[in-house]
Amino acid sequence: MARTKEFDPDVVLRAALDLFWERGYEATSMADLVEHLGIARASIYATFGNKHDLYLKALDRYGDLVDPELLRGLSQPGPALPAVRDLVERYAREAGDDSGRRGCFIVNTAVEVAPHDRQAARRVAASWDYLETAMTSALIRAQVQGELGPTKDPRALARLLLVLMQGIRVVGKVGAEPRRLQDAVTQALALLD
Amino acid sequence: MARTKEFDPDVVLRAALDLFWERGYEATSMADLVEHLGIARASIYATFGNKHDLYLKALDRYGDLVDPELLRGLSQPGPALPAVRDLVERYAREAGDDSGRRGCFIVNTAVEVAPHDRQAARRVAASWDYLETAMTSALIRAQVQGELGPTKDPRALARLLLVLMQGIRVVGKVGAEPRRLQDAVTQALALLD
Repeated sequence: MARTKEFDPDVVLRAALDLFWERGYEATSMADLVEHLGIARASIYATFGNKHDLYLKALDRYGDLVDPELLRGLSQPGPALPAVRDLVERYAREAGDDSGRRGCFIVNTAVEVAPHDRQAARRVAASWDYLETAMTSALIRAQVQGELGPTKDPRALARLLLVLMQGIRVVGKVGAEPRRLQDAVTQALALLD
Repeated sequence: MARTKEFDPDVVLRAALDLFWERGYEATSMADLVEHLGIARASIYATFGNKHDLYLKALDRYGDLVDPELLRGLSQPGPALPAVRDLVERYAREAGDDSGRRGCFIVNTAVEVAPHDRQAARRVAASWDYLETAMTSALIRAQVQGELGPTKDPRALARLLLVLMQGIRVVGKVGAEPRRLQDAVTQALALLD
């Protein structure tokens, strides 16, 4: 038996995330993980647990990658509305190009795994709560700063944008009609005027 | 060997659709199908082809179930805007209750299967084109009838609602926060005022 190789758990976890993100949970076997991660099966079990444990850790890792960047973008001082617009437009742009097929790992998890997996569902819900809170906060700031009309409802608008962004990710998976996404975003953002 | 049972291919196809819809493509094995459909493996192959063929046929069957009803609802004479509103509100309501976890078979396919399956992707794209066309048509009628302002863009609004509806289905899979969906829909439908 070969001696166990040394490895960086964070690098391995990132590689596992990439594989689950690309293929989904069911289509990724433990054998695929062993091959793709380049470490022994026993090392995977010892470090991360079984496939399901590893998936949940990959989901947490994805949140660590994505969430702080989102929050930073939405929390800059100064005008707040451009940051919200930029975020939604970036979703549509990314979904319209080739990377859109991979989509969002949260959306993939929501659809494939969460309906019959409470631990995964809890992480998906937490991610959406986080994004809704960050966007609501930015829109409240926009309202106080006079960028957003006083009769607008920041939380309801944030909810529209949140749900729309999940739809953008889904439509992007099929790759057709980038103008569909642009039109959808332009219409929704008109509510911020 | 037992004699081959007689069966109604349409009933069997509907049962296959239910299983794929509930579990997804990868998580449904041929053995699961044999058990759930109650017919011999050889009969499945002879009538529907392999698992992938059967999945595509189930996808077509889903379209046959859902599309005509959508179009009928959106094509009634008289005021057209209430039908569009009803449709979007129904999506939010259904996604907010327990059936929401099963979601929409088209969304499930878009996320799990379409990124690496052209035949499935083509069917998903056709379904969205169909819904976009039906909603655009209703909104054009609403505009001509004076229900929708003359400066509104029926196709762009239909695209917003289409993408939002896919987001509603995704958010519904996790089942949290029905008010999130209601708020999102209320905000989007305000664009029709």
